[in-house]
Amino acid sequence: MPNDPVHCVLLSRTLDLRKYLSAEITKLEGRVTFVDHLGGTDPAAVRMAVGWFPHADAFDHYPNLTAACSIGAGADSILVCPSLREGIHVVRVVEPAQAQMMSGFVIWHAIYHQRRFGTYLANQRERVWKRLGQRTAQEVPVGILGYGAIGARVAADLAALGFPVKAWSRTAKPASAGVTGFHGADGLAKMLGETEILVNLLPLTTETRGILKADLFSRMQPGGYLIHVGRGEHLVEADLLAALDSGQLAGAALDVFHVEPLAPEHPFWGHPNIVLTPHDACDVSLAATGQTILATAEALQAGQTPKDTVDRTLGY
Amino acid sequence: MPNDPVHCVLLSRTLDLRKYLSAEITKLEGRVTFVDHLGGTDPAAVRMAVGWFPHADAFDHYPNLTAACSIGAGADSILVCPSLREGIHVVRVVEPAQAQMMSGFVIWHAIYHQRRFGTYLANQRERVWKRLGQRTAQEVPVGILGYGAIGARVAADLAALGFPVKAWSRTAKPASAGVTGFHGADGLAKMLGETEILVNLLPLTTETRGILKADLFSRMQPGGYLIHVGRGEHLVEADLLAALDSGQLAGAALDVFHVEPLAPEHPFWGHPNIVLTPHDACDVSLAATGQTILATAEALQAGQTPKDTVDRTLGY
Repeated sequence: MPNDPVHCVLLSRTLDLRKYLSAEITKLEGRVTFVDHLGGTDPAAVRMAVGWFPHADAFDHYPNLTAACSIGAGADSILVCPSLREGIHVVRVVEPAQAQMMSGFVIWHAIYHQRRFGTYLANQRERVWKRLGQRTAQEVPVGILGYGAIGARVAADLAALGFPVKAWSRTAKPASAGVTGFHGADGLAKMLGETEILVNLLPLTTETRGILKADLFSRMQPGGYLIHVGRGEHLVEADLLAALDSGQLAGAALDVFHVEPLAPEHPFWGHPNIVLTPHDACDVSLAATGQTILATAEALQAGQTPKDTVDRTLGY
Repeated sequence: MPNDPVHCVLLSRTLDLRKYLSAEITKLEGRVTFVDHLGGTDPAAVRMAVGWFPHADAFDHYPNLTAACSIGAGADSILVCPSLREGIHVVRVVEPAQAQMMSGFVIWHAIYHQRRFGTYLANQRERVWKRLGQRTAQEVPVGILGYGAIGARVAADLAALGFPVKAWSRTAKPASAGVTGFHGADGLAKMLGETEILVNLLPLTTETRGILKADLFSRMQPGGYLIHVGRGEHLVEADLLAALDSGQLAGAALDVFHVEPLAPEHPFWGHPNIVLTPHDACDVSLAATGQTILATAEALQAGQTPKDTVDRTLGY
């Protein structure tokens, strides 16, 4: 006898998840039944959620809910929810295609810095013909904060293009060919001293909140470059502006911000050494999100822990 | 008994080669003696030249000269010299590091188009927060004109980043993993029909002069992108502007021009869909040029044809 569909509630105070996931909701019909928050379905029948910044008390309504899927690679928007209780598995979306998309985005910014494209673009606007000289990729060491599925792909691709690549993770991980691994507080200080381009791919946790600050920038090689594609809350914004003003950092690429959309009066917009994008470095695909929802539903029916469940203590 | 140094004349009407090559000239002392054009040395003692746009009659002065080295990957600046006679080996500089430098440059422009960075940069200037959606590299086919040492590296790197890569050469060549090879006139038409981003890496020859013209652009996928890093004379400039105006091409990256430096009044400077750089995509290193000069001198002493001698009929 086939299993009954799993009831899954849509929990978000910022996004219309039914609209966002409409194609996947159709595909999963018969296996997952999506219900709206406070939509009249018996709350006791709800076994799981899809969540993106749920309301503070959202989970209190569903006594038998035991899993909550994010719609992105990070689960922080669920983990910060005050009503998230012990015993709920929080699941993130892991997708190789997303890692490739992020990798292309990071590579573009790394070459932008290496090859001084910001100066070329400014010179073109002024109709100035001036050769800038060239540094090889081998002369521009890159340090990566976060060496999970995405970090590993970014590191491997940068190494293949000739960049010396270092990667830092909280705990020791095996490093791939061409990548030097670092871990722990000592490892971070050591890596920063050998880093010109710093790529932030960390998850947002209590430990990593505010990690991109003056002290960290001061440990990097002078004239460095920050590629920030983690979460807005990783960055102390005033410290970044000070590091750019002093020349400790030559520039920064920012895709994430404390408040999104970024306010029109924010100084980042007009800063000559900042390239910013509207949190668009890489989405997970809807198809991957749909697969994660289905796999989570099937795991619950089988009485197993869903794949890609985050460690609640670590936050990723 | 060691060989006497080989006398090598410096031939350029556009560049101070003694200054440009000064470090290499010092290194090669005792093995190659560099003399200035019409500088008083017995012309009959001169066995070889380093050339970059030599004067029209330059080679007529040196009856025993049998080799001329370029200072770049292309030898066209020597091949167009009217006094270049049969029996002079024309040698170009082949350097793996140059291929890597070119590859990074091309990758940057390919991702610029794929990820719509031109629009992001314009939106930042206007303080517009607008997500643009994402296309994977797999959705953006790249065609490469020229599949020599540099083309092969560019093709392999783009393929590793997920782009579908096609490469065209005059005659059939074995293609690497992830690269589809095309050759001949039919092959060119077929490749263009499957190409969104076209990368020009061809040598400048009588066959390739003016190859980037209206007919070629019209065979590409609509909304395509040209990355032109060959020689200025490959491009029919008016046809490019027309293709941009009609939308047949969405944009172009130009590093080389008919007249360099590009005149301040040239329409390319201010075109919203052109990114231009001052012929700075990739130099060969001075060290590689020095090694090529030395290897050529040694080949002459040994009575051998120098390595990397171009085929005068083909022009590369």
